[in-house]
Amino acid sequence: MASRPQLAPVLRRLGRAPAHLRRPAALQQSVSLPTRCFSSSRPRFFQRTAVVAKSTNFTTETYPDIKRDSRFAQLTPEHVDYFRGLLGSESAVIDGVTKHEAADDIEPFNSDWMGKYRGRCQLVLKPGSTDEVSKILKYCNDNMLAVVPQGGNTGLVGGSVPVFDEIVVNMGRMNRIIDFDEVSGTLVADAGCILESADQFLASKGYIFPLDLAAKGSCHIGGNLATNAGGLRLLRYGSLHGTVLGIEAVLADGTVVDDLCKLRKNNTGYDLKQLFIGAEGTIGIITKVSILCPQRPQAQNVAFFGLESFEQVQLAFRAAKGQLSEILSAFELMDEGSQALVRQVTKNPSPLEGRYPFYCLIETSGSNADHDGEKLQSFLEDVMEKGIVADGTLAQDETQVKSLWAWREDITESLSHLGGTYKYDVSIPLKEMYQLVEDTRARVDAAGLLGDSDEFPVRAVVGYGHMGDANLHLNVATRRFDERVEKVLEPFIYEWIAERQGSISAEHGLGLMKKKYIGYSRNPTMIGLMKNIKNTFDPKGILNPYKYL
Amino acid sequence: MASRPQLAPVLRRLGRAPAHLRRPAALQQSVSLPTRCFSSSRPRFFQRTAVVAKSTNFTTETYPDIKRDSRFAQLTPEHVDYFRGLLGSESAVIDGVTKHEAADDIEPFNSDWMGKYRGRCQLVLKPGSTDEVSKILKYCNDNMLAVVPQGGNTGLVGGSVPVFDEIVVNMGRMNRIIDFDEVSGTLVADAGCILESADQFLASKGYIFPLDLAAKGSCHIGGNLATNAGGLRLLRYGSLHGTVLGIEAVLADGTVVDDLCKLRKNNTGYDLKQLFIGAEGTIGIITKVSILCPQRPQAQNVAFFGLESFEQVQLAFRAAKGQLSEILSAFELMDEGSQALVRQVTKNPSPLEGRYPFYCLIETSGSNADHDGEKLQSFLEDVMEKGIVADGTLAQDETQVKSLWAWREDITESLSHLGGTYKYDVSIPLKEMYQLVEDTRARVDAAGLLGDSDEFPVRAVVGYGHMGDANLHLNVATRRFDERVEKVLEPFIYEWIAERQGSISAEHGLGLMKKKYIGYSRNPTMIGLMKNIKNTFDPKGILNPYKYL
Repeated sequence: MASRPQLAPVLRRLGRAPAHLRRPAALQQSVSLPTRCFSSSRPRFFQRTAVVAKSTNFTTETYPDIKRDSRFAQLTPEHVDYFRGLLGSESAVIDGVTKHEAADDIEPFNSDWMGKYRGRCQLVLKPGSTDEVSKILKYCNDNMLAVVPQGGNTGLVGGSVPVFDEIVVNMGRMNRIIDFDEVSGTLVADAGCILESADQFLASKGYIFPLDLAAKGSCHIGGNLATNAGGLRLLRYGSLHGTVLGIEAVLADGTVVDDLCKLRKNNTGYDLKQLFIGAEGTIGIITKVSILCPQRPQAQNVAFFGLESFEQVQLAFRAAKGQLSEILSAFELMDEGSQALVRQVTKNPSPLEGRYPFYCLIETSGSNADHDGEKLQSFLEDVMEKGIVADGTLAQDETQVKSLWAWREDITESLSHLGGTYKYDVSIPLKEMYQLVEDTRARVDAAGLLGDSDEFPVRAVVGYGHMGDANLHLNVATRRFDERVEKVLEPFIYEWIAERQGSISAEHGLGLMKKKYIGYSRNPTMIGLMKNIKNTFDPKGILNPYKYL
Repeated sequence: MASRPQLAPVLRRLGRAPAHLRRPAALQQSVSLPTRCFSSSRPRFFQRTAVVAKSTNFTTETYPDIKRDSRFAQLTPEHVDYFRGLLGSESAVIDGVTKHEAADDIEPFNSDWMGKYRGRCQLVLKPGSTDEVSKILKYCNDNMLAVVPQGGNTGLVGGSVPVFDEIVVNMGRMNRIIDFDEVSGTLVADAGCILESADQFLASKGYIFPLDLAAKGSCHIGGNLATNAGGLRLLRYGSLHGTVLGIEAVLADGTVVDDLCKLRKNNTGYDLKQLFIGAEGTIGIITKVSILCPQRPQAQNVAFFGLESFEQVQLAFRAAKGQLSEILSAFELMDEGSQALVRQVTKNPSPLEGRYPFYCLIETSGSNADHDGEKLQSFLEDVMEKGIVADGTLAQDETQVKSLWAWREDITESLSHLGGTYKYDVSIPLKEMYQLVEDTRARVDAAGLLGDSDEFPVRAVVGYGHMGDANLHLNVATRRFDERVEKVLEPFIYEWIAERQGSISAEHGLGLMKKKYIGYSRNPTMIGLMKNIKNTFDPKGILNPYKYL
């Protein structure tokens, strides 16, 4: 470690002779590579879940106030016969589930990967076509069978697993790339395509999926739409409401909505597909997606900084926006608490020599490596000279890019290795963004719940997220789930956000977790209109019940 | 004219010594400035309309099949008294209107600027606040008075003027900038702000409105949202579905929907604001807008090319996408027919010496003039060397930028000076985009309607539009409106588009003009769902009747 040069002095030295440099090659040699990193070979969801599931409490035990809707039918042998006749026994998986005796083949569909939610579903259906989805839903609607649409099941709010005995409709078999137009960049694909697979296909064509997130190896693009995932590069490529051109979806009664438009402009009536983006499977099941993909950047740079205060982080962000402008593709924030937990779990050596209260990861993506390098160097010199940044390092190849990104992307998974996490995904005006972490930490501490030894349920209160979108992930890392912790956190956090007109769910959705808190971000008029929409599309309420609204 | 050097040979010469150039200054000197251009001092709508209006036929005469909905009440003195009491007599403008005796103060609100549509409205209301809009609509809903929401009234499909005696609610008085966040770039403004005024405000802060279109001097940002305007730089900044963060709107019954979110990420329930974007005032009146604005580019370049075929245009587009990438902000197409009409009306000298079947305008916007200049020069050399482009010119200052843009932006207005225009705003897969113009021209010619002398109703069939979005504006320029022409054009054009799964309304909306043709771009399931949405938001149907669905 001692032999690793720090970037800061190097940068300051270079600052005196910038004219000599086309690209800061000298800087790049100062990077030391972490030796171990699990982002590049991220374990797949099902491996993880099978382990977690059997020790997870049933949701109905954790939340005894939620009652099963008696309007829904119980599953009968006749129902199962119908689905087996339709799909075959391999795609209509049935099993008896009793507490702590769940069969492995159905359990991963019942539980979320964090080990927080666990349903009692007895039947998982895996349709292979839109027609099969349509027949499944028509039958369920006719027979009052409740349904949970499920993609990669990587969500964080309990939206993609059953609460009671809802039938799971898992989209994993519908995973084809259907069409790609190399001039316009329009991709048409099944909803069950894994995000990383879709992106790898696009990479072979010189394009990129306009969304990236840590769960990319497991999550489905249909699920990304259903939850309106934002992810790491929203700053650059914008939201799915702008990039999605069309969808095909199946309504609760089996009606197929064909809105699989491939055109960038189509002003012919209400843009109904927008309702499905972020609807979390409550008004229909998305079966196909048409999305506009940008050209894959030919040059990519990633820098990682240490900063002394959140004020400095804000200054660095403004400087990056101004100076990196059209090539800035990510500006991520991590506090020391979150990085300490990653170090503890991964045992990776930190990219910087010292410890700082805050770290930022900045990524640029562009079409000309020389131009991007010049812009980045000029930015680096500026923030170093002004003392905005205390130390930093710059990736010099694709492996190092991944290693630096791992310090951001591995936070969620590292926390899950240490115990349960209370996760809050919120949007707040930028200048107050980190204050929520400090206020929450002080509150948990004052309640005597935060400490270094086993007697304290809370290990740490940490914050990280997408600075570029004012989107904070507040995580309360626990040794064990404890009701006292939840009571200290809620509704305190929601009230804190509502006072600042923030959003209690920036990108992770409402799911089961935030159903009852929507009133902190939406007024009664809006909620009333939303309920009308739900009733219009799913009058019997069979789709993803107990959640969302 | 003979002394003006052409760009083509200059470019080829430079191609041999690119290393000497940071920015193609020598090229810029080859530009000859048009001496007259009406884009920079575009006449305002009201001046124009007052002239046009009295000679325009009433819509009910042109389309006698449309019948007044007898459920709607007739305006009474009691109604007028209520509105005058609410708004004052200057903001509740009443006048008796009989054929060809319209009072000047109300006529501009009754007629569209093209002189194609003219209503018989007797009352124009100009609310000054959301509360006034709410009280107006509640009263209208309670009394079954039909309403036409109206912004800048610059639309092309008859969506913003009455058909019969609907009351016009004009938003022009609600024109304040409410809030601007200089870190995030979020602008909050009244719906009645003129687009150009909002952009000028943003320019003073170093930001840009993420939408630009030829009518910017008159159109309102609320109207832009209501029609989901696409415009000139959608290629770069994306659609309003991605950039609009929130709206405030008033429903038919006076309910105020407060969704004026300033956050980039807010996944808390159905994204209802998306329904209002492109709803053409049929489910509510947008009163305020919150929109994310990008930083204003510090460098801008505009090039104008002549090309020998549509195949060459496609090659140029692919090259521009690949080589200009993140700085490409517009790629516009104009055919020689459209440019000939602009020359005829404006008398401006053409930017290029020769005549070519096609012209393209390419704009780059970026943060570093040197980098952008290098990218553009490399692109220019490539397309010249490969013979993709026959000739070209490059703007060297802001005045020349405007002059070159005028050749694209002045088409619509030039056509309107020569007589009526049948306008079709369509989206088609790129490779067939121009074929529609050729097929339509052949059809009109075969019907004996196209010719150079006065006996032929059709002067020219021309095409132009946003190549970057596969969005063609097919314009049939007439000497006079003639029923035979419309019969030759429709439904031929809509069928041609439906066969290719295009959109019959890329960006101009449905309005009155395309109401009956929505079936060519939307299936019965989609139309049924849309009608449900309409009924949910406006159960009595008072908002913008006779149009849209």
